[in-house]
Amino acid sequence: MTSDRAVVITIGNEILSGKTVNTNASYISKKLGETGIKTVRSISVGDERLDIQWAVKEACSSADIIICTGGLGPTWDDISKRTVSEYFGRSIKLDREQLRIVEEKFRALGYEKMPENNITQAEIPEGAVVFPNSRGTAPGLLIIDGSTHFFMLPGVPSEMKGLMPEQIIPYLQKTLQKQEIFLFRTIRTTGINESLLAELLHPVLGNLDDPEVAFLPNPYGVDVGLTTKGKNNEEILQKVRRIEEDILKIVSKYIYGYDDDTMESIVGFLLKKLDLSLSTAESCTGGLIGDRITAVPGSSEYFDRGVITYSNQSKIDLLDVDPSTLEEKGAVSEEIARQMAEGIRKKSGCDISIATTGIAGPSGGSPEKPVGLVYIALADKFGTVVHKLHFRGERTRIKQQTTQAALNLIRLRLNDKNLYSD
Amino acid sequence: MTSDRAVVITIGNEILSGKTVNTNASYISKKLGETGIKTVRSISVGDERLDIQWAVKEACSSADIIICTGGLGPTWDDISKRTVSEYFGRSIKLDREQLRIVEEKFRALGYEKMPENNITQAEIPEGAVVFPNSRGTAPGLLIIDGSTHFFMLPGVPSEMKGLMPEQIIPYLQKTLQKQEIFLFRTIRTTGINESLLAELLHPVLGNLDDPEVAFLPNPYGVDVGLTTKGKNNEEILQKVRRIEEDILKIVSKYIYGYDDDTMESIVGFLLKKLDLSLSTAESCTGGLIGDRITAVPGSSEYFDRGVITYSNQSKIDLLDVDPSTLEEKGAVSEEIARQMAEGIRKKSGCDISIATTGIAGPSGGSPEKPVGLVYIALADKFGTVVHKLHFRGERTRIKQQTTQAALNLIRLRLNDKNLYSD
Repeated sequence: MTSDRAVVITIGNEILSGKTVNTNASYISKKLGETGIKTVRSISVGDERLDIQWAVKEACSSADIIICTGGLGPTWDDISKRTVSEYFGRSIKLDREQLRIVEEKFRALGYEKMPENNITQAEIPEGAVVFPNSRGTAPGLLIIDGSTHFFMLPGVPSEMKGLMPEQIIPYLQKTLQKQEIFLFRTIRTTGINESLLAELLHPVLGNLDDPEVAFLPNPYGVDVGLTTKGKNNEEILQKVRRIEEDILKIVSKYIYGYDDDTMESIVGFLLKKLDLSLSTAESCTGGLIGDRITAVPGSSEYFDRGVITYSNQSKIDLLDVDPSTLEEKGAVSEEIARQMAEGIRKKSGCDISIATTGIAGPSGGSPEKPVGLVYIALADKFGTVVHKLHFRGERTRIKQQTTQAALNLIRLRLNDKNLYSD
Repeated sequence: MTSDRAVVITIGNEILSGKTVNTNASYISKKLGETGIKTVRSISVGDERLDIQWAVKEACSSADIIICTGGLGPTWDDISKRTVSEYFGRSIKLDREQLRIVEEKFRALGYEKMPENNITQAEIPEGAVVFPNSRGTAPGLLIIDGSTHFFMLPGVPSEMKGLMPEQIIPYLQKTLQKQEIFLFRTIRTTGINESLLAELLHPVLGNLDDPEVAFLPNPYGVDVGLTTKGKNNEEILQKVRRIEEDILKIVSKYIYGYDDDTMESIVGFLLKKLDLSLSTAESCTGGLIGDRITAVPGSSEYFDRGVITYSNQSKIDLLDVDPSTLEEKGAVSEEIARQMAEGIRKKSGCDISIATTGIAGPSGGSPEKPVGLVYIALADKFGTVVHKLHFRGERTRIKQQTTQAALNLIRLRLNDKNLYSD
């Protein structure tokens, strides 16, 4: 086996009906990719003999490595093992050693006797390699047929996620004589839309074959994905770094992080580095800024408190917002955003404070103040800045975009070398 | 078009590499299923001409309805439209009307000029039906070729999720002469694990063929999915209702809602019905309760305010928590949870208040107070109740489970007929 192409097959009616989101396929592809194996197709079919046969045939004609999950359970609708074995002309036999293992697992779970149905999980296709499953009763199986390596794994995500890194990947690494290693780099941007970003980066990325480039929009911005491969780490790192430098020259102000960075982890990192404390006053975002900040382990080191001031009265009580300004300008206004940020900063004694007020919709909009209108204010010892923004989309999207812009405002402020220096 | 079989094609390197979980495929299959159209295959390929051609060919030979997403963006890696049109022998032409629409969308976003790249989004395959996209610039497209109906939708989930229910499903319903109707019923439970739920329901569901039953664990509990079909609404409703009654008899106390209900929408409904106001005091959940409550449109009618008291000082300042109790018992304790709930209730003047304090991890645990230990308190005019809970999993999972238990505590309290009556 020298191929570096794979097909992933996920079997199960619950996937085809849309009841279950297919996280197995993405997990497997990711693990394969890290090993330098590219998934060229991902196919899902239901627990139907003809559909499984079709998928197996298509997979085998597209790649030498096939990873198939689902249908290894103990019930009558689990027909994957039988159908795949049939395809490869292998008989299925009860394996004594495997039976002993399955029975022992049931005893360990406190059962007196293994349920009759589970005997099928001790049946092994002729000549198959068996991979022990530490988290369940169905082992992983591998049928080798010429250059084809057909792996069967249980569909229960926790069991599959045990077998892949513990058994399958090491097996593939050992068996494959890998010539190349892969690098995936993600450059995370916010505050710029996909097409403008692509237009700005076209001179650099437009005619690029290697690395491969992808633009990946998400609720918090647009990620630029770079994929490359090479003979050694040095070579591929150099290749990616050259492109990264070119990208940075053009759009650095939109880039907030790389790979697994999140905006909240970056903001946390900066606050910690500068030894600053943070407090929040949220209206339209309803607590989502606080939720995102506290998603970062160790955030209690810099996040002191937040208030969610949904009613007008709560803005007066908790932030000393001026009732007459509320009356005159309305809760969604530059003035109120400013008073909210300054209010929470004063009350909390924190170094830096952020506030949001806006109209998340779907109702509550007017011609002067439409749904999606948002004010974000930041207060620190250098003063207060207020940004007026207009977002589109549903309530949840508007909340998400507002929190991203608010956290980004903190990031940009802390990165301003005229104000904060290391 | 009379077929009730569909193939879903999702195109994108980010899906094949596993970077993006394929939520589009499950969403589309779910929507099709609700219309009585069964997805027989789901295929993902990368942004490669040959792979897309293969997927289109396979799909067209398996079903009359094909829904394809991805690769309609404005950048050079978006080749789906071109490749699919080529397959069907259709030329692509700039559509003046479509260009006007795309340009207008950019003007509405405040751009002086549409980025050059976006011109491609106004190009339409010969003879294609165009479905306006209210949330983005790439319209949905339909190529009809004999009995084949090939739909192309943008891959951005929010845009696809606009087009499917607003445009594609109504079109299919009108075009299809449907013989059978499907019913999907989801019964949402929380506070009980999957295997115990399955065990309790085995007498009712164990040997059931129709409806089909599925247990679907998610961060907020376990959903029981029932699927059935029939000739008319009456018939299938009766079938499902009978089963539902049996399920209710056994596990009613764990059921919080049905179908698209969320815990936060149910709590909102009850608060509105009883005309009660709510405030929150969050420590370990960091604002996620507030975020969930305010995810419900119209929540400002009952949600007054919340505080995120992450530091000890903030608990003293904002909730009048007793410093000596903090010193003696620690922030994660029954006493502090009680004082937090009572404190925010008193300060806000709300009818009902909820508070959380716990150890979300990964650090901060001890043998006496391990990671996952959580106290939830509810205060109302009838008194204060405190629940001690222990959750497992990562930081985010612990936060999610805590918010679910907190909201559920409100739900159960408001449903207590000895306290609150309609």
